[in-house]
Amino acid sequence: MNFHTRKWVKPEDLNPNGTLFGGTLLRWIDEEAVIYAIVQLGNSKIVTKFISEINFVSSAKAGDIIELGIQATHFGTTSITLTCEVRNKITRKSILTIDKLVFVNLDEAGNPTPHGKTEITYAFAGDRP
Amino acid sequence: MNFHTRKWVKPEDLNPNGTLFGGTLLRWIDEEAVIYAIVQLGNSKIVTKFISEINFVSSAKAGDIIELGIQATHFGTTSITLTCEVRNKITRKSILTIDKLVFVNLDEAGNPTPHGKTEITYAFAGDRP
Amino acid sequence: MNFHTRKWVKPEDLNPNGTLFGGTLLRWIDEEAVIYAIVQLGNSKIVTKFISEINFVSSAKAGDIIELGIQATHFGTTSITLTCEVRNKITRKSILTIDKLVFVNLDEAGNPTPHGKTEITYAFAGDRP
Amino acid sequence: MNFHTRKWVKPEDLNPNGTLFGGTLLRWIDEEAVIYAIVQLGNSKIVTKFISEINFVSSAKAGDIIELGIQATHFGTTSITLTCEVRNKITRKSILTIDKLVFVNLDEAGNPTPHGKTEITYAFAGDRP
Amino acid sequence: MNFHTRKWVKPEDLNPNGTLFGGTLLRWIDEEAVIYAIVQLGNSKIVTKFISEINFVSSAKAGDIIELGIQATHFGTTSITLTCEVRNKITRKSILTIDKLVFVNLDEAGNPTPHGKTEITYAFAGDRP
Amino acid sequence: MNFHTRKWVKPEDLNPNGTLFGGTLLRWIDEEAVIYAIVQLGNSKIVTKFISEINFVSSAKAGDIIELGIQATHFGTTSITLTCEVRNKITRKSILTIDKLVFVNLDEAGNPTPHGKTEITYAFAGDRP
Repeated sequence: MNFHTRKWVKPEDLNPNGTLFGGTLLRWIDEEAVIYAIVQLGNSKIVTKFISEINFVSSAKAGDIIELGIQATHFGTTSITLTCEVRNKITRKSILTIDKLVFVNLDEAGNPTPHGKTEITYAFAGDRP
Repeated sequence: MNFHTRKWVKPEDLNPNGTLFGGTLLRWIDEEAVIYAIVQLGNSKIVTKFISEINFVSSAKAGDIIELGIQATHFGTTSITLTCEVRNKITRKSILTIDKLVFVNLDEAGNPTPHGKTEITYAFAGDRP
Repeated sequence: MNFHTRKWVKPEDLNPNGTLFGGTLLRWIDEEAVIYAIVQLGNSKIVTKFISEINFVSSAKAGDIIELGIQATHFGTTSITLTCEVRNKITRKSILTIDKLVFVNLDEAGNPTPHGKTEITYAFAGDRP
Repeated sequence: MNFHTRKWVKPEDLNPNGTLFGGTLLRWIDEEAVIYAIVQLGNSKIVTKFISEINFVSSAKAGDIIELGIQATHFGTTSITLTCEVRNKITRKSILTIDKLVFVNLDEAGNPTPHGKTEITYAFAGDRP
Repeated sequence: MNFHTRKWVKPEDLNPNGTLFGGTLLRWIDEEAVIYAIVQLGNSKIVTKFISEINFVSSAKAGDIIELGIQATHFGTTSITLTCEVRNKITRKSILTIDKLVFVNLDEAGNPTPHGKTEITYAFAGDRP
Repeated sequence: MNFHTRKWVKPEDLNPNGTLFGGTLLRWIDEEAVIYAIVQLGNSKIVTKFISEINFVSSAKAGDIIELGIQATHFGTTSITLTCEVRNKITRKSILTIDKLVFVNLDEAGNPTPHGKTEITYAFAGDRP
């Protein structure tokens, strides 16, 4: 799994108990997963269709650096399935895992349409020169 | 199920395709569910432990009014399980359902602790006089 | 008065003195009142015309749950007048009251237009099935 | 009246009808008025106590530059009363006026305390060298 | 140099170390400079082209009031060059200086176009009646 | 140069002309550079000291995916110097370059203190297993 996007947990991201607000974390994950799906499918018209069970393993506090890891696990005809892990960048301790996030590829009219992809395209996904 | 909190979908809530950004919706749901759990358990030190499958049924667009419905479905010793539906306030069309959101009741030290509740407390949950 | 929308006061909502920032509270009220007016008038093209005296009775702090109550008090030909109270969800202590918020119903061209409503429509305002 | 703070109306500030969201404007005004009061009273522990009638004269759209004008109109023993006008920076057309905003000067314990000021202090309010 | 816009540093503006987040300060400066350029050039279609060295002299903390000063220093054919200082409103201590911010005047098609201005226009820049 | 964090340009990130607001971009860069510096120096108490000339090469629009690249170029005794490029993830077209961003390593009291690092530490910077 590649870990790309990182976040620095700031006061604006906290809940009143002083830990990372779960809703903020979910917002970050959804954006990162959409980005991954767009890059893989080469189409920006994509919708979130399904998110499987979310296990909150540990929390984060102000000043922590977290990183979001996404990996494609299945290419359907009109969909792509991703898996996700969020972890503390320094300690590598897991914060949250999501087994499946399913996105659907849409045409201009907003209907599901085949994307023609069957495997991870490294040319766009990585950070190579 | 009671529908309390409403949101007016504004430009700041949209994804680049012009529909409600999924991550923003998840953030709204997490806040509403935490509020429901705090009110039911009478304790504000609560953490999100688990969220079951999320089904995105339909989307919303700028100007839509959506409402968030939460209902307790199970009281564990130290946890509470909620179910959630988000729908369009005007058309009542479902936008998203989540079968289970589990929150854990913590003591001051951050450890799970019994909450002593076994059923929905209407005195705090409703909008009666 | 029905209390629908609830907010969990988070660090991002505080002023530097550590209490709920008044401007944030006013933003929440304006959104809730617009939602109420849209639901009652069945038209989303509505503008805030007038807000009467605002009395700040008490404040709120991080972790408080507040709820926003709105009630229609007068239906004009092209306008609707609402009254508002914000209170602490747990203690029911009043935080703020506003006697009158007046919204005007607009047509597509942005001119005031009769809305044809004369009383509160419960079918859309409540959380009944 | 001095007009200091300016805002550039961006998409994030709009309501779904494409005009400046009233709640956002109220948030901007509250911040500007608090700043004016803090500078005049030389104390940052200040609370909003009362806001008189708000008249929404005209709206603003994306790309407009608006400026916020505040002026002290009365110095009470523990309070200060301000008046406010928001206008379009280019056309100088009025957007909103508020006759009175009353702030109360607090001591460390949060109780009203005399501020000892009786007139506008230009040394801190202006933009002179 | 005229100091117009002021900000009240709130918890949402802080980094995890409890001081003003540099990125938030840069965002405020860019907005204020764009506003100054729009007012001077009488055209809202303007882009940031270049920002010279930024020296962070001191920081700010929650509750500080800061003010942003901008001054035009050069009028090119299609561009305008500004200089900027941010300082603490109360102590007048400098927080940051930027020698040059260059903005380019665009036509409807997005191409650089002469703005016809050669000096600071006080009629629009000041707060005179 | 490694490109880690990605952003999906959403309506909330736009200026009124419909392109990515420069101030938002600067905010993203500052956060990513701080994260890189913290990871390299193994210390979260770090301040931005200096940012060299910023060249805005091209813009971005809603729906674009941009990625932020940072690389350490010099390790001083108490400082670290980074270089930055922001580019469009799909087209790889450059959006902005910054030659130098200097951060200073602080001790608990907030004074500059030696960090003891002399080269890039890949163990924490990369996305290897």
